[in-house]
Amino acid sequence: MTQAREEPYPGIRHGETTLAFDPAERVDAGVRFIGRIRTPWARGDCPRNVTSARERAAAEGGRFRVELEDGFAPGLTGLDVGRGVFLIYWMHQARRDLITQAPRHVEGTRGTFALRSPNRPNPLAMCAVTITAIDPLAGWFEVDAVDCFDGTPLVDIKPWTAAVDTPAEALKP
Amino acid sequence: MTQAREEPYPGIRHGETTLAFDPAERVDAGVRFIGRIRTPWARGDCPRNVTSARERAAAEGGRFRVELEDGFAPGLTGLDVGRGVFLIYWMHQARRDLITQAPRHVEGTRGTFALRSPNRPNPLAMCAVTITAIDPLAGWFEVDAVDCFDGTPLVDIKPWTAAVDTPAEALKP
Repeated sequence: MTQAREEPYPGIRHGETTLAFDPAERVDAGVRFIGRIRTPWARGDCPRNVTSARERAAAEGGRFRVELEDGFAPGLTGLDVGRGVFLIYWMHQARRDLITQAPRHVEGTRGTFALRSPNRPNPLAMCAVTITAIDPLAGWFEVDAVDCFDGTPLVDIKPWTAAVDTPAEALKP
Repeated sequence: MTQAREEPYPGIRHGETTLAFDPAERVDAGVRFIGRIRTPWARGDCPRNVTSARERAAAEGGRFRVELEDGFAPGLTGLDVGRGVFLIYWMHQARRDLITQAPRHVEGTRGTFALRSPNRPNPLAMCAVTITAIDPLAGWFEVDAVDCFDGTPLVDIKPWTAAVDTPAEALKP
């Protein structure tokens, strides 16, 4: 007799390993989504990082808009066009139990914390972008490019600061 | 008749505003703590950012050690001494409902998303650091400096990448 099995995640590749539990089922704190990121990208047609998102946006056009939930708009006060910010978003379709991975573009197997893969115990992703338009009263702004699917939940926005966001070695002139 | 009121957070300053709700009580996803950050800092004696943490560490000494929970060690495979990484941690003592803030070191009031304050809807903090020692099998590594309290919960580790973690304008030579 065959049994239907629940498969919450897609299968793993050769050399990949998983935790003994799913972090989504043993949580220590809660994240509140503060908005959504609107992009031209969907599964199967999404650039691999913000650099290639920027290149495709330059070639094909496309708008990248951050829309905040009700109540969060005053948090944008003081941000302006031209400002560099980090967007931190939640890759809700990612797999949370992969602890080593064998991505197609990397030779061999690597630890999840040595990769920027969306698959990680806490599926946070982030990139540094530039504000290109903003309406702080209405609670939205646009940026030069982002690499996530349309509708990805936003978790935080932080002003980019060279001294904090660059390792000391790379800061040296 | 006076009533005792529950005050989960400390009071707010003049000009500061709050959300109509506490994000901790309306959550959309769960975070799993993957480890702890060991530092010399405690409340009342904590540097304001990683730059000043680095300066104090140079003057006073001090070790900064990331200790992973059981099971997460294989995630470090491929990280080495000298590598720049982001540490992303959870400021569990922060206030989550402040949406504009008047920090002592800033003129006037500013939106939470224009500040690196630990007080934010999702109290994530991060900085870019350099690995100075590592034992991937034992699940720990040391870094040059961090600005958080001893015992702060760790949420993620990401390899730092100039192209992803620097806004396009600041990347230009």
